[in-house]
Amino acid sequence: MGGRTHVALTVAYDGTAFRGFAAQPEQRTVAGELTAALAQVLRDDLADVVCAGRTDAGVHAWGQVVSFSTGADVEPARLVAVLNRRLGPEIVVRDARAVAPDFDARHSAVARAYRYTIVNRPVPDPFLARSAWWVPEPLDLSRLRLAADPFVGEHDFAAFCRRGPEGTTTVRRVLRSHWDVLPDGVLRYEIRGTAFCWQMVRSIVGTLVEVGRGRRTPGDVMTILRSRDRGQAPSPAPPTGLCLWAVDYPPGVLEPSGDAAGSTAWSIPADRE
Amino acid sequence: MGGRTHVALTVAYDGTAFRGFAAQPEQRTVAGELTAALAQVLRDDLADVVCAGRTDAGVHAWGQVVSFSTGADVEPARLVAVLNRRLGPEIVVRDARAVAPDFDARHSAVARAYRYTIVNRPVPDPFLARSAWWVPEPLDLSRLRLAADPFVGEHDFAAFCRRGPEGTTTVRRVLRSHWDVLPDGVLRYEIRGTAFCWQMVRSIVGTLVEVGRGRRTPGDVMTILRSRDRGQAPSPAPPTGLCLWAVDYPPGVLEPSGDAAGSTAWSIPADRE
Repeated sequence: MGGRTHVALTVAYDGTAFRGFAAQPEQRTVAGELTAALAQVLRDDLADVVCAGRTDAGVHAWGQVVSFSTGADVEPARLVAVLNRRLGPEIVVRDARAVAPDFDARHSAVARAYRYTIVNRPVPDPFLARSAWWVPEPLDLSRLRLAADPFVGEHDFAAFCRRGPEGTTTVRRVLRSHWDVLPDGVLRYEIRGTAFCWQMVRSIVGTLVEVGRGRRTPGDVMTILRSRDRGQAPSPAPPTGLCLWAVDYPPGVLEPSGDAAGSTAWSIPADRE
Repeated sequence: MGGRTHVALTVAYDGTAFRGFAAQPEQRTVAGELTAALAQVLRDDLADVVCAGRTDAGVHAWGQVVSFSTGADVEPARLVAVLNRRLGPEIVVRDARAVAPDFDARHSAVARAYRYTIVNRPVPDPFLARSAWWVPEPLDLSRLRLAADPFVGEHDFAAFCRRGPEGTTTVRRVLRSHWDVLPDGVLRYEIRGTAFCWQMVRSIVGTLVEVGRGRRTPGDVMTILRSRDRGQAPSPAPPTGLCLWAVDYPPGVLEPSGDAAGSTAWSIPADRE
């Protein structure tokens, strides 16, 4: 393995037209397009790229982190422009940098933040149709916020997880669970945790929205969480509103990207003139 | 014509996948989809719908206004929900209201405002790929603003117009021509005028960007304008960044829509947390 270069990419994508991140035969996936572009640029057979969070079909990312190693002589700083020329407008490499040989986008990560965006007004917005869930019935913000609180801490999230392989744990630690209000009836939920199990964020949001609609109470959320029974939780929210926003690594392991600013499309507009 | 109801719709659309507003045989157009939805809902053969601004292929709208009359017994307020259920997420009817029999979305309009959005940073943004033009080279804002000033007033815009039918005038009155700065390297140009000729906004933006890049001077803009020669103007900017933002009517003719708030996707975010 002497002379191999270890690289971490920060990648944003509009997941609408992809069957998720992970490569699958005959399917259009983010990993598939990224690996093809890397193979062209590096002229090197890559081991599989590793990502911080395997997003599902239709789910977006602003700060996905991807790591790989290559025997090619590559200057990571040049990779950004070269890869973006090959990738379509739906996938953008925001940053590329050399990392230590033991860096692994998934295992080195200490936390992930997801954002879920809801357009909560009677009439939808065509410019947010790909990146938000349109909920026309008015949602009660104080109920949404009350219901979001109990998720913080270490819990067995079995009621909010699609079942993984036998014997895998569904215990996770949530660090933040909060609703922000944007102008024009847009609500945004942010959840940060050490890790998430399959469909956990969408399942939590689906439950919170039922509380916001008045069909469940904030107290029900506690009951569902304690039940550890997936049959108790309402349907997951659709993938369209979900975005893997950021991934945290220990200090010094992966410094914030030079392009650390958020996507304007996801910012909080405080004034619309 | 007794008993006919005259209706004005305010319509937003993501124009990416349409061959423009105007109906064309065998093409997917905004008017085509809107007319088909109206015909289903009203069960009535409509005369052609009239729009305030015939946007080209790939151009968007937030406040397009469309008028038509129908012999069907229709309550305009109910039309919004019924039409939005039939239209896809790319076209949204934001408002519907009864208007006077002599209202005509095109001829009653006294002004139109267009916005053009540019992502001006080294790395593109996948969530703005459909609604903005990505210009990686840094643009000089003070040059952009200097160059935008001479357009205000009444001028013959022949140098910035695709030729229309023989004998049509290219004299237009521009009321506002201004660049706004959004966070994260997003620039937005707004131009308001009584009317615009074909490709005029894209041609103006294409010229302004050449000035911002340093390839032309602000003084060149005056020279091009006075030449009335389309061969003098640089290439038009691509349609993807252009949006018909709002249409003005005389006071009392068409009151601002109840959903007058802007699209969040187009707002100026002042703070990104």
